[in-house]
Amino acid sequence: MKLYEELAEEMSKMIAAGTLRAGDRIPSVRAWHETRGISASTVFQAYYLLETRGLIVSKQRSGYFVRARLERLPPEPEMGHPDIRSTDVNVSELVFEVLGSLKTPDIVPLGSAFPSPLLFPLPKLAQAMASSVRKLDPWHTVADLSSGNLELRRQIALRYVRDGLAITSDDIMITNGALEALNLCLQAVTHPGDTVILESPGFYAALQALERLGLKALEIPSHPRDGINLEALEQALQQHQPKACWLMCNFQNPLGSTMAAAKKQALVDMLARYQVPLIEDDVYHELYLNGQRPVHAKSFDRHDLVMHCSSFSKCLAPGYRIGWVIAGKFARKIERLKIMTTLSAAVPSQAALATYLAQGTYDRHLRQLRLRLSIQQSQMMQALTRYFPEGTGFRQPEGGYFIWVVLPKKINALQLHRLALAKGISIAPGSIFSAKTDFQHCIRLNYGHPWDDRMEAAMQTLGALANKLAS
Amino acid sequence: MKLYEELAEEMSKMIAAGTLRAGDRIPSVRAWHETRGISASTVFQAYYLLETRGLIVSKQRSGYFVRARLERLPPEPEMGHPDIRSTDVNVSELVFEVLGSLKTPDIVPLGSAFPSPLLFPLPKLAQAMASSVRKLDPWHTVADLSSGNLELRRQIALRYVRDGLAITSDDIMITNGALEALNLCLQAVTHPGDTVILESPGFYAALQALERLGLKALEIPSHPRDGINLEALEQALQQHQPKACWLMCNFQNPLGSTMAAAKKQALVDMLARYQVPLIEDDVYHELYLNGQRPVHAKSFDRHDLVMHCSSFSKCLAPGYRIGWVIAGKFARKIERLKIMTTLSAAVPSQAALATYLAQGTYDRHLRQLRLRLSIQQSQMMQALTRYFPEGTGFRQPEGGYFIWVVLPKKINALQLHRLALAKGISIAPGSIFSAKTDFQHCIRLNYGHPWDDRMEAAMQTLGALANKLAS
Repeated sequence: MKLYEELAEEMSKMIAAGTLRAGDRIPSVRAWHETRGISASTVFQAYYLLETRGLIVSKQRSGYFVRARLERLPPEPEMGHPDIRSTDVNVSELVFEVLGSLKTPDIVPLGSAFPSPLLFPLPKLAQAMASSVRKLDPWHTVADLSSGNLELRRQIALRYVRDGLAITSDDIMITNGALEALNLCLQAVTHPGDTVILESPGFYAALQALERLGLKALEIPSHPRDGINLEALEQALQQHQPKACWLMCNFQNPLGSTMAAAKKQALVDMLARYQVPLIEDDVYHELYLNGQRPVHAKSFDRHDLVMHCSSFSKCLAPGYRIGWVIAGKFARKIERLKIMTTLSAAVPSQAALATYLAQGTYDRHLRQLRLRLSIQQSQMMQALTRYFPEGTGFRQPEGGYFIWVVLPKKINALQLHRLALAKGISIAPGSIFSAKTDFQHCIRLNYGHPWDDRMEAAMQTLGALANKLAS
Repeated sequence: MKLYEELAEEMSKMIAAGTLRAGDRIPSVRAWHETRGISASTVFQAYYLLETRGLIVSKQRSGYFVRARLERLPPEPEMGHPDIRSTDVNVSELVFEVLGSLKTPDIVPLGSAFPSPLLFPLPKLAQAMASSVRKLDPWHTVADLSSGNLELRRQIALRYVRDGLAITSDDIMITNGALEALNLCLQAVTHPGDTVILESPGFYAALQALERLGLKALEIPSHPRDGINLEALEQALQQHQPKACWLMCNFQNPLGSTMAAAKKQALVDMLARYQVPLIEDDVYHELYLNGQRPVHAKSFDRHDLVMHCSSFSKCLAPGYRIGWVIAGKFARKIERLKIMTTLSAAVPSQAALATYLAQGTYDRHLRQLRLRLSIQQSQMMQALTRYFPEGTGFRQPEGGYFIWVVLPKKINALQLHRLALAKGISIAPGSIFSAKTDFQHCIRLNYGHPWDDRMEAAMQTLGALANKLAS
């Protein structure tokens, strides 16, 4: 972490702990210099970061002040009596209705699953692609088919090594995006009729994968604060015999929740006690917005039971369809399933990303991307505060580009989705994130698109519709 | 067809019909000029083509003569009493053992499923890739995800239109190679436990797909001459209730067989009478070596029951992983399955192929590719005649790059495969092409690699091993 990030983090904690409260003046630039010898430019960078996160405001000639908290915490889900019966899954119709509505090009994409493609270094990637396909050894078009391009796997492994994981190129298998990796992991450890543990609410593609493979879902409540409820999980592990557990520990879709390192460790240990493999979907890992690079659940995997999946689709190269899986003892089975179904990810995409990563500019891109997402997140939260009805709850996510909004119970999110669509705005209604009928008053909003007048107007319209439905 | 191709075809027919027999002198260049006004260079081109196909030989100062037939026809399979019980499928172990043996880079790849990557216009594709990724509209990285790049679909549709099929861009869905398309088609029309009709011998990936989805195989005998036995097929349709029929009508893998247009029509009509969807795997379509562009089974599809799959992997761009499916009423279901499992084919690969196809040099590449494959086919057939034991049967395929070799019954192909591998040569033993125990004395050889001393020596070694096993 850079010094300015450390300083910003320190201030964030003081605000979070209530030491500094709304309206308090925070230490001046001079004060930091005098007491700790920190340069003015470093302090300004830290304050700029805090400002983009919506934590402080500058008042002309008076310095910086802690701003009124933007977030409105949603009510805690009732965790005492979680409903953990397993259910057959049938959400696809609704998911496809919602996804279909996103195809119209002029729609404001608040319901989209993707960030704006304008956030990515497409010209640099194009250069990397041009130079790598020209130099491509023809035999690589065959050799790179099964595990994937060796240099790409090495570059990916290096990032895990930097995170403290002893991962080698051989541990990594390239796939057609993380989605293929996740589906293959699931198929590798289940048979039709088996039960699989998911989060609720959770990524709809997990529900679809279960539906496609004839599996039953056991949905465990998850909270925007810190993810899955471990007590409910243990209860489920005792009462059922799930064959796998599929979840996101970092910046969960749709909640934006993140599990602390200790909780990840507790999760991995608990699953290991019941010998249940964990399918870790970690596609948002690089998109941390709080200055703290999160750890992977895989880091705590002492029993080779964690299948760790990730991709470049959300943080670098949308459309290149390059993901990967680190699957330990399950890797051989997964590779065979891949060879049977799609054979391989595209060789040019693999070569281009290997070349790009070797250039060493990826981290610079990620820093810019995080800064932009921070700013957009703050703008979306301000708009939520400004336009949405009394009783709307939300919590600032520590990463990713989704915010989970709990509307007043009277509002039906599916109805809101249809009304909004008629006005050219998409949202993701809560009901697509569960096989049950929970979350009918919740929506997921995407702040992965640059903020402009159109976004502001869309949020205003959405707020007005919500107010109408709430009254 | 060019004039020289027409002339070569005309001569081929006369040889096939027995009008011209081994040792006969064929008309001189002057004769053609005098009787039909054909130029000397055209006649020479035709004769060169016939020579590369192994049909004629030139004798110095004496002109061209019909050569002794190279092919040795295998015995007809016993079609009278086909064994058409459905069987559970479990071939994967063996297939992966054989595929695994191909990974070693120094192995002579006679068992490979791929042609040499050196046969493809990789530099031109690299240029197309470089220019198309530079111009790529960022929004295409999202928009091209479901059905695929519009211009690419249009370019593919145009080729079908040229073949007389009324196919539009909207009828085509891009997939991760034909393999994904075929797997999705299969899943779209079956449930675990269902029965599916395959050819025997047939492409092992079809057997693997059935195994993966818990389906039963009903294998219908197929012959190197003209493919599947329609009587046996009708008997199977009467006695079982198959949910799909998956086969290759053109240059079948591994047989190299091709069905005549009338037979394709009969096949499509028969399946329609029983309301069984046909999954048409047509990946070798462009690789016809007899001057005659074959028709697609899809051409005869009046009841919207044919799902037609193809790709660029075998004829243009190995490793780009671009295939497609034309699936009519099944298209919606297939698209949804694709969105659930891999989302999309790589956007850069799609854009590059769209650009390449628009340049108009694809047909020129294909003509060169066919000529090279013709020459390599002839060389492989000559080597088979030269080195392989008495009683070895094979038939000249009309396209593709595989030749099916029926060895004397005493030879166990799996044993031959292991002996050959120890000498650095791969072959594909017949047993990987069926869930039954037929074809244990058959092998598939790949003539998709440029002929050189190493290939010749490998064929000599293989022949010697076969002779030893036969004695």
